[in-house]
Amino acid sequence: MILIVYAHPHHSRSIAHRALLDAVRDLPDVQVNSLYDRYPDFDIDVEAEQALLAQASLVIWQHPIYWYSPPALLKLWFEVVLMRGWAYGAGGTALQGKGCLWVTSTGSAEDDYRPDAAHGHPFGAFSPPVERTAVLCGMVWQPPLIVHGAHRVDRTALAAQAAHYRTRLEQWNARSHG
Amino acid sequence: MILIVYAHPHHSRSIAHRALLDAVRDLPDVQVNSLYDRYPDFDIDVEAEQALLAQASLVIWQHPIYWYSPPALLKLWFEVVLMRGWAYGAGGTALQGKGCLWVTSTGSAEDDYRPDAAHGHPFGAFSPPVERTAVLCGMVWQPPLIVHGAHRVDRTALAAQAAHYRTRLEQWNARSHG
Repeated sequence: MILIVYAHPHHSRSIAHRALLDAVRDLPDVQVNSLYDRYPDFDIDVEAEQALLAQASLVIWQHPIYWYSPPALLKLWFEVVLMRGWAYGAGGTALQGKGCLWVTSTGSAEDDYRPDAAHGHPFGAFSPPVERTAVLCGMVWQPPLIVHGAHRVDRTALAAQAAHYRTRLEQWNARSHG
Repeated sequence: MILIVYAHPHHSRSIAHRALLDAVRDLPDVQVNSLYDRYPDFDIDVEAEQALLAQASLVIWQHPIYWYSPPALLKLWFEVVLMRGWAYGAGGTALQGKGCLWVTSTGSAEDDYRPDAAHGHPFGAFSPPVERTAVLCGMVWQPPLIVHGAHRVDRTALAAQAAHYRTRLEQWNARSHG
């Protein structure tokens, strides 16, 4: 099963994430777990989340970038669901060997992510906290899928990224079942 | 005024952060704003937070590192308090020119933050999301104060860091009022 842990506090306003989700949600073995729908009060059901994760071969963290990092509810999910002794540390092998794919979007153009531009670094400089969270849990980090300038992205470019997302998941399924 | 925005979900269990706070809380013009005490339900009073920030010349973000980044409630605080048009973007100049000091702690030893060690990077590789949040708001980033191995740090080393923290704030006050 491919589990999409989706964290968007304003899903209905998101053009990019709706297009991305719509491109993959009908695939066999894909489950979308929308954290802001499920836990509007930040009251995460840890057992239910761990049970979902246990069934997944690929875990996707899909969300917009806010302040250079995941939205607060996904951050809380990391803190309460990825428990020591379950996800990491002694005996913490529940996620070992699963794939982890980061699907994210930025409001700014990719050009704003440069040493001499607004964000001071290439976008990759902001990935270590997310990537190392996956790696510390023994997950296998996949090349991320990043939509830049999500507020202004044109329909054709977005459709191409959505199609690419679908292909990535189809390939994962083919490999898992092949 | 020096505003310490403090985010620790388990303050009473924290040796390091209690020592750090105890070293500075009696200084004149220091105000400690403990987010997890104030907002246990993640229901942040944005106007009150902005009013506090408006009075500060130095804003301190003090918290333990969880999953290579600030705790979820501080992340939420970034998202809801640092509003576009107030903290950044067109007309967003409320924090312009204020200092920003990051005071944080890690559970691991500093040696675990190396390319060939558990966390895969020097600790500085995890600072861009926090630092660029400050910079995007026009705040002046100060050299961070980082306590590594907070679970095991010895009393003498911790006392030295707490004293250093106090000195940093005294110097800030002296400069501001000098």
